[in-house]
Amino acid sequence: MSRKLLIGIDGGGTHSTAVAAYPDGRIAALTKSGGLNFHNSGVKTVRLRLESMVKTLSTQCGCEVDEICVGMSALDSPADEDTRSLFTTGTLRQNQLDLQSDAYIALMGFTLGEPGLIVICGTGSMLLMLDKEGRQHVAGGWGYLLGDPGSGYTLAREGLLAVINAVEGIGPDTPLLADALLFFGADTPRGLIDRIYAPEATTAWLADFAKHVLARAHEGNAVAQKILLRNMQRLAQSAAQLIKKAPEVGKVGLYGGIFAHSDTATEFFVKELHRLAPKADICTLNYPPELGALIHLFQKRKMLTNEVLTLMKSTYEEYLHERN
Amino acid sequence: MSRKLLIGIDGGGTHSTAVAAYPDGRIAALTKSGGLNFHNSGVKTVRLRLESMVKTLSTQCGCEVDEICVGMSALDSPADEDTRSLFTTGTLRQNQLDLQSDAYIALMGFTLGEPGLIVICGTGSMLLMLDKEGRQHVAGGWGYLLGDPGSGYTLAREGLLAVINAVEGIGPDTPLLADALLFFGADTPRGLIDRIYAPEATTAWLADFAKHVLARAHEGNAVAQKILLRNMQRLAQSAAQLIKKAPEVGKVGLYGGIFAHSDTATEFFVKELHRLAPKADICTLNYPPELGALIHLFQKRKMLTNEVLTLMKSTYEEYLHERN
Repeated sequence: MSRKLLIGIDGGGTHSTAVAAYPDGRIAALTKSGGLNFHNSGVKTVRLRLESMVKTLSTQCGCEVDEICVGMSALDSPADEDTRSLFTTGTLRQNQLDLQSDAYIALMGFTLGEPGLIVICGTGSMLLMLDKEGRQHVAGGWGYLLGDPGSGYTLAREGLLAVINAVEGIGPDTPLLADALLFFGADTPRGLIDRIYAPEATTAWLADFAKHVLARAHEGNAVAQKILLRNMQRLAQSAAQLIKKAPEVGKVGLYGGIFAHSDTATEFFVKELHRLAPKADICTLNYPPELGALIHLFQKRKMLTNEVLTLMKSTYEEYLHERN
Repeated sequence: MSRKLLIGIDGGGTHSTAVAAYPDGRIAALTKSGGLNFHNSGVKTVRLRLESMVKTLSTQCGCEVDEICVGMSALDSPADEDTRSLFTTGTLRQNQLDLQSDAYIALMGFTLGEPGLIVICGTGSMLLMLDKEGRQHVAGGWGYLLGDPGSGYTLAREGLLAVINAVEGIGPDTPLLADALLFFGADTPRGLIDRIYAPEATTAWLADFAKHVLARAHEGNAVAQKILLRNMQRLAQSAAQLIKKAPEVGKVGLYGGIFAHSDTATEFFVKELHRLAPKADICTLNYPPELGALIHLFQKRKMLTNEVLTLMKSTYEEYLHERN
């Protein structure tokens, strides 16, 4: 058996995780690096980070590298040749690099290549469905300026709009006002403006205010619940609309910080999706996205067996356990 | 009679206009410069632009300068001493400089110092009311991330959300999709994402898409009309809420590009405001903001008479006429 490595990489906006596997599925090594979003970090930085991680893994294992699958947050479909060639001007070869969206490798981590739909809801939100012909269908992911229902950013923004309505006397009072003053460090409601538009204010920081909207919804506050319900219904509508295009899709995976941290968000989403698509089988992810990237490579090579999966999962868990 | 000049300046985000008047109201000179928003351009640049405009006017007229009123888009209330002192470290003295918001000088241009409310609706939106005690009350002006109902930015954004809903099959078809592809230069709906988040995309450019929402509303398109109606109702609610605090306020002035370019927007706003505040007397502005800044100075010195106003207006019109 060849000992050439397969590498799976979860390339996020701020950090990335790369794992190498032997052809039997056993995890050989793991390394981490900065973000791989080339819109934010630039193509050259991303290429050098990629090359460096691949080299590290290859050196650690004392093996050559066969193929690398990267799930990139800057993509929403498999990369075309032009995009691939941007990252293969250095040491990697065109036929070594398989660039996918971060949503796709997360999806592979729970459907193992079978048809399915993943609903990702973190700082932003996005849906990706794989149909039985292997075609990808995307919805959402329009970014913070244009919506992304259910995302941390949108929940935070709508929480602040409720605060503004309360301040201006055209909406009900809400405990989110006190939360916002404290969170953003403002003395008065209008003082929020300077904080939110300050040069150092980031989208991620603003989105983090969503935790107060989630907490108030969990407490039963009507204003916060209304915001969360409206958003989860909108996200479930998008999911149901995708499923209409591929009725064979049963599995729906929920992923990302909003679902992970809010049972209320999950409950609102599930209730609406079951109303619109009663057959949807809502699951959690079994394999993290970096393993999803590996699963994609194993499946592509028709090497994905239960033995491979079992070995991959158990050795990865051992690996993480030893590290902690 | 002293021949010392009074100067009124409309200090916008991208350009500014300064006019000098003799104590009888006659316009003596005019000059223009770059923007005076110190959040965007920095304090030093703004101070140098201010000083340069004042020097130009003083030299043109061969007169000393008595006092200067600036309406600054970076303020939403009269400047405190700390802010004033930022702009008087050079040639201007503390007691020469009267810094107000741009909304305030626009308000002075139509109420002439009487109680009134101005509703400004351009790229952003904001409301400012002057009560009979001379106190200023502000609403809106929370900026593009947090709403600004009726503003170009918000109309554009909600137009794009309608486009997204149509594309994802959870909203009605809309001609705004074709408008958006053409306006943003995208081949496909998802191609809009790269355009809108491109480093060169500005808030003002995005807001400019509002012209298509306004045009479609004018044509009678239901999707566009719904967006415009909802926004104008929200803006009118804010206006009515302010008037409740000062029932003596009769005059309501409408100002800014949305009202100037859309009869439909104006009609929707007026209808809702008359429903909520039947006594509101909706007016247009008689004097541009730079004259509003002068009117503020004349009123402060108890020198504002009908003669002054008549002379100011006629000489300013002559001045502009000669220039064109």
